[in-house]
Amino acid sequence: MADNTLMVVSAHAGDFVWRAGGAIAAATMRGERAVVVCLSYGERGESASQWLAGKGLDEIKAIRRAEAEAAASALGAEIEFLDQGDYPLVESREAVAQLVDVYRRVQPSVVLTHPLADPYNGDHPAAARMALEARVLAQAIGVANADGSFPTKDEIIGAPSVYFFEPHQPEQSDFKPNVLLDITAAFPRKRAAMECLPAQKHMWSYYTDLAVRRGVQVKRNAGPNLGLPHETMGEAYVRYYPQVTGVLE
Amino acid sequence: MADNTLMVVSAHAGDFVWRAGGAIAAATMRGERAVVVCLSYGERGESASQWLAGKGLDEIKAIRRAEAEAAASALGAEIEFLDQGDYPLVESREAVAQLVDVYRRVQPSVVLTHPLADPYNGDHPAAARMALEARVLAQAIGVANADGSFPTKDEIIGAPSVYFFEPHQPEQSDFKPNVLLDITAAFPRKRAAMECLPAQKHMWSYYTDLAVRRGVQVKRNAGPNLGLPHETMGEAYVRYYPQVTGVLE
Amino acid sequence: MADNTLMVVSAHAGDFVWRAGGAIAAATMRGERAVVVCLSYGERGESASQWLAGKGLDEIKAIRRAEAEAAASALGAEIEFLDQGDYPLVESREAVAQLVDVYRRVQPSVVLTHPLADPYNGDHPAAARMALEARVLAQAIGVANADGSFPTKDEIIGAPSVYFFEPHQPEQSDFKPNVLLDITAAFPRKRAAMECLPAQKHMWSYYTDLAVRRGVQVKRNAGPNLGLPHETMGEAYVRYYPQVTGVLE
Amino acid sequence: MADNTLMVVSAHAGDFVWRAGGAIAAATMRGERAVVVCLSYGERGESASQWLAGKGLDEIKAIRRAEAEAAASALGAEIEFLDQGDYPLVESREAVAQLVDVYRRVQPSVVLTHPLADPYNGDHPAAARMALEARVLAQAIGVANADGSFPTKDEIIGAPSVYFFEPHQPEQSDFKPNVLLDITAAFPRKRAAMECLPAQKHMWSYYTDLAVRRGVQVKRNAGPNLGLPHETMGEAYVRYYPQVTGVLE
Amino acid sequence: MADNTLMVVSAHAGDFVWRAGGAIAAATMRGERAVVVCLSYGERGESASQWLAGKGLDEIKAIRRAEAEAAASALGAEIEFLDQGDYPLVESREAVAQLVDVYRRVQPSVVLTHPLADPYNGDHPAAARMALEARVLAQAIGVANADGSFPTKDEIIGAPSVYFFEPHQPEQSDFKPNVLLDITAAFPRKRAAMECLPAQKHMWSYYTDLAVRRGVQVKRNAGPNLGLPHETMGEAYVRYYPQVTGVLE
Amino acid sequence: MADNTLMVVSAHAGDFVWRAGGAIAAATMRGERAVVVCLSYGERGESASQWLAGKGLDEIKAIRRAEAEAAASALGAEIEFLDQGDYPLVESREAVAQLVDVYRRVQPSVVLTHPLADPYNGDHPAAARMALEARVLAQAIGVANADGSFPTKDEIIGAPSVYFFEPHQPEQSDFKPNVLLDITAAFPRKRAAMECLPAQKHMWSYYTDLAVRRGVQVKRNAGPNLGLPHETMGEAYVRYYPQVTGVLE
Repeated sequence: MADNTLMVVSAHAGDFVWRAGGAIAAATMRGERAVVVCLSYGERGESASQWLAGKGLDEIKAIRRAEAEAAASALGAEIEFLDQGDYPLVESREAVAQLVDVYRRVQPSVVLTHPLADPYNGDHPAAARMALEARVLAQAIGVANADGSFPTKDEIIGAPSVYFFEPHQPEQSDFKPNVLLDITAAFPRKRAAMECLPAQKHMWSYYTDLAVRRGVQVKRNAGPNLGLPHETMGEAYVRYYPQVTGVLE
Repeated sequence: MADNTLMVVSAHAGDFVWRAGGAIAAATMRGERAVVVCLSYGERGESASQWLAGKGLDEIKAIRRAEAEAAASALGAEIEFLDQGDYPLVESREAVAQLVDVYRRVQPSVVLTHPLADPYNGDHPAAARMALEARVLAQAIGVANADGSFPTKDEIIGAPSVYFFEPHQPEQSDFKPNVLLDITAAFPRKRAAMECLPAQKHMWSYYTDLAVRRGVQVKRNAGPNLGLPHETMGEAYVRYYPQVTGVLE
Repeated sequence: MADNTLMVVSAHAGDFVWRAGGAIAAATMRGERAVVVCLSYGERGESASQWLAGKGLDEIKAIRRAEAEAAASALGAEIEFLDQGDYPLVESREAVAQLVDVYRRVQPSVVLTHPLADPYNGDHPAAARMALEARVLAQAIGVANADGSFPTKDEIIGAPSVYFFEPHQPEQSDFKPNVLLDITAAFPRKRAAMECLPAQKHMWSYYTDLAVRRGVQVKRNAGPNLGLPHETMGEAYVRYYPQVTGVLE
Repeated sequence: MADNTLMVVSAHAGDFVWRAGGAIAAATMRGERAVVVCLSYGERGESASQWLAGKGLDEIKAIRRAEAEAAASALGAEIEFLDQGDYPLVESREAVAQLVDVYRRVQPSVVLTHPLADPYNGDHPAAARMALEARVLAQAIGVANADGSFPTKDEIIGAPSVYFFEPHQPEQSDFKPNVLLDITAAFPRKRAAMECLPAQKHMWSYYTDLAVRRGVQVKRNAGPNLGLPHETMGEAYVRYYPQVTGVLE
Repeated sequence: MADNTLMVVSAHAGDFVWRAGGAIAAATMRGERAVVVCLSYGERGESASQWLAGKGLDEIKAIRRAEAEAAASALGAEIEFLDQGDYPLVESREAVAQLVDVYRRVQPSVVLTHPLADPYNGDHPAAARMALEARVLAQAIGVANADGSFPTKDEIIGAPSVYFFEPHQPEQSDFKPNVLLDITAAFPRKRAAMECLPAQKHMWSYYTDLAVRRGVQVKRNAGPNLGLPHETMGEAYVRYYPQVTGVLE
Repeated sequence: MADNTLMVVSAHAGDFVWRAGGAIAAATMRGERAVVVCLSYGERGESASQWLAGKGLDEIKAIRRAEAEAAASALGAEIEFLDQGDYPLVESREAVAQLVDVYRRVQPSVVLTHPLADPYNGDHPAAARMALEARVLAQAIGVANADGSFPTKDEIIGAPSVYFFEPHQPEQSDFKPNVLLDITAAFPRKRAAMECLPAQKHMWSYYTDLAVRRGVQVKRNAGPNLGLPHETMGEAYVRYYPQVTGVLE
């Protein structure tokens, strides 16, 4: 079993930055390992400006990959690409098996992924469904490893926590946060990671404003003893499985 | 501002034992203060055997009070009684004002109460609505103290967390736990508190079995590193406001 | 304990006819007792034509009462009026106490009332809330009778089933039927009862059409062996508490 | 019957500015009438800085009233105050009767008010429940006018549309917008109205940012032919009753 | 970009008539274009009488096609058939790609399809999921056209509104209408279209009654100034994405 | 058409015992036929101890099959195995066609299967979706039999009732029972069937405790005349389609 390790399953190459960059940077700043898995590059659905500029499919995938690698690096995270295609991201046995393999190699204690509903982008729930399915399969000693061998007791995973990160239109996606994460200290790294994605420059201020907004909610919902700074920045999450704890606080 | 302090708002004299005894004992075993507020003695709705035995109203209230004091003592908690009557517990401005007063005296960091729906017992949601309303009022500097004075900055409270404890028929009460509390170490004190309520002896084993059942779920939902003992005991809660945290785990 | 007895709690004098007339007639045709309790006459909110005709409050109440008595008679049911006023029907301790008294006198095995949501008419949910609260209070030996005496064991009630009948705009009232009642044989009596309400003549065909519509659903949802007639008539209900049974069928 | 007239029912003196200022200004800029009804001044719950400054209750109410009058004026709206008290705003027959009177005088075609859930502020749902109840009562010819007379046919109202405006923490209040209002042209007036509320200066930028955020959603959800400007500003609403229309568009 | 154009995605050949015939006729009577896409002929699941009469698969498909063409003609609409099979209608990449092609050719401003839940007929949600997925894909410049070319800026579509039409058992399908369409003027054409489907003659009166029922709700929910005729006919819809508007009315 | 016949669709070889053993035994004790269909043996996901013991896939499947046959025999039920694999159980046209064949052979009046949500085990909802889809297909005369012939009128099925049995973590699976089944008389056979599954010995007491717990709810929700014994045992179910009945009771 590993120490705390964060695994992020992202449908497209940029999602992990906008939606979970603060959580990732906070983890790596604590010295924890963070691994991002991009199921696709977002080459068809989230690269309009490059298609308009006349670029071809392979070129666009390479650009998106390089940007995502730079952003992951700014966050202190490792990154892997499964290149499963987008628009649509098709759920397949093969993609799930690859994710099982990542789970077993990474042994995450926490998993972040998209929420299960998004009426604006079907790739996001598809990624979440595969991330959840692979998490259950990776726990089973009867489910073979990627090379066909059966896992030993050491290779199967435990029951990592799962958090859904915030979709673009939260209310329309039935996203009701039950965890508000204070990312004040981590925000400069999140901003740096956002700036690795130049084609979506208009999103930099949008997601900075969102961090302020979620930061206001962090303060509003905090317990009486927290004494948070004025410029608290936040990210919103939905924990999928119940929290297990020894202390109500 | 106080250190961690637990406040429990209970509709009837026995509710806090069956539903939150583990959380209370766990808090006092950590050296924290716990204060139970009983809105009524449960004298009409939860004392059938005493009515059948021909006892009168005042006598029944005295018996229930003594039992609840003994149970609170077994849990290491303080206890107050507001004597607002039950079946029905009527929501009133006066009862809410008394609760505001308790909040300001106790300065809780965590509040436990009934969930907002219970198709089998309307007193439970009534207690929860008053507990929630008083919590908001107690935060406002413009809301007078019980003696008519206006609070100073020291008297108002912060924003304590709120957890709903488990109703008798959880699914029918739309109770979907999002927090599972490990009460293994505290369970002997919970059992001792239950045994202070002799008229409901058939509930002792029922709520022991429930603790086993919730303990199985504690283990099933725990993260990979917890290594919980075989005989884990649990209590289930619904956190009402989002959790504020600096770490996803 | 009585044999099967049906009790219907109706906010206004006409509701029980349109919404539950088939269930009432079916019960009395089986030889069972049915008791309708009207919390108000619907004198303000459902008597527009009489106000337009210049009638006064007492006169309107008398007209509505006579019509409701005739309709109850057509259904074979007894009827009581609590005269609590409408528009709004105000929830009060006194009205609930009167309902407790009715429950204890009638000893119903089944209770029909309005659903808990109706964005078009707040009297309906108010009636339902009082009917449900009184049902719980009437079960408790510690809750006094109307004359101040405490109930003996014979006076308290058991746990009668509760069904919500259909509101005027079911989808807007979150009314999702889980019971479809075949009222084919009882429909002529329901129609006769509707015709006792001449001021709402346009409703006769509306609720006949509705019975046809629900009858189509009765047939569509029936098990394979029922062989229902072509002209099946129906009423839709929501059972509030779980069904207890010895047979899944 | 009047031409289009907007009526806004606000729990506290400032709510209508932050949450519906754009809709109000847009209406008055089209030459329509807008009437704001403040159930309280927000004197206890939303005037912390004035209490801290040592001001008394009457003084605070006067300040809040003057600010709200200035803000209404900036929006081109009329304003009335019912002075029902806040923290808590108590639901009462008398307050509802006053609202019935306003409905009948104003004859609104559209009503804006708070949503029915807000776990952070119970006054908001209380205001909404009273606004909805009074709207139904004002339609009934059997419900007396404020002076005890019965309404003539001209005094009762029709069935004005109802929209809930945005609460402070929309997801926690189960607020899922189904209408996005373009307030780009009206925004300068909304901003001017916000600046009439100097004690809540930190809210000016917060609600300007929110208008940008909702504006992004206006553009994202707009049909293909709208050609909206880059700096679209928006407000989010929940329509409570179904839209009636002759055209799907 | 086109003027207003209505596109209807129908699982089987008859669905568009019963469920959306009024909206289609209303559009074409305003001079707008309407295009119906039938994913299947309903040859297996909705042609029981023809199977009983001993007809073969190809013959049944031809009959259903001819009937649907006649009905579309009566409504003034164009019609296309994708012949994807029914019972079950299988979701496939190929069917979605064909729908993308239709979207790009038709450039709809409004899309009508089945709701996402129907416990009685899985083909309906399958059609809706494909209609929604294709709508998103057709917006992306990186998603190829049917001939493998990449779309130019002119070929991609905007963000047409989406409405779900009424399923056979609305409450069981969690269908809560938020739009009520007045189809009074268009109803004769809808009736004429229904009469093009002789095998389902018992549905003619069923869906005429439903139009009356929904018409009653149109009147009940209409604003005060509409002055609707007595015999208003209606259809019910659920708008899936938020309405974008400049006026609350 | 057959007399009452129960059909149980189980994802893995053991599910029918823990979750529906009481209903099955109660049916066979009444002399009715019960047929269990196991979609897989649970060979990968629910056989950890055997994998740890070094057994191979075929051996594990044989063991699980033998255990399930013994358990079915103890319940008086027939059993079939479709061997579709588990972890994951993949939804396929072929598996659905096999289920259609079983439905037509068995002609069930009642169907039991898993609920549609289970965040801990995706095989369970997959089994439920296939069971529901096949039930609809089996009703259609245009859907071919397994041998390619078209069904005669005798081969298609009616509309059997569907009940979901209880998942391992009911609240997390949004399982809100609406039917509580008294299995007191059948429980000894259920216990005997459980004891046919020696690898899951720790579950014997867990599911015995659950039967006690559901039995308490049976008594709590029973009507006033039932006079149930003290040691009532129960199972909880969700009826998926509305109940059709001639009597409200």
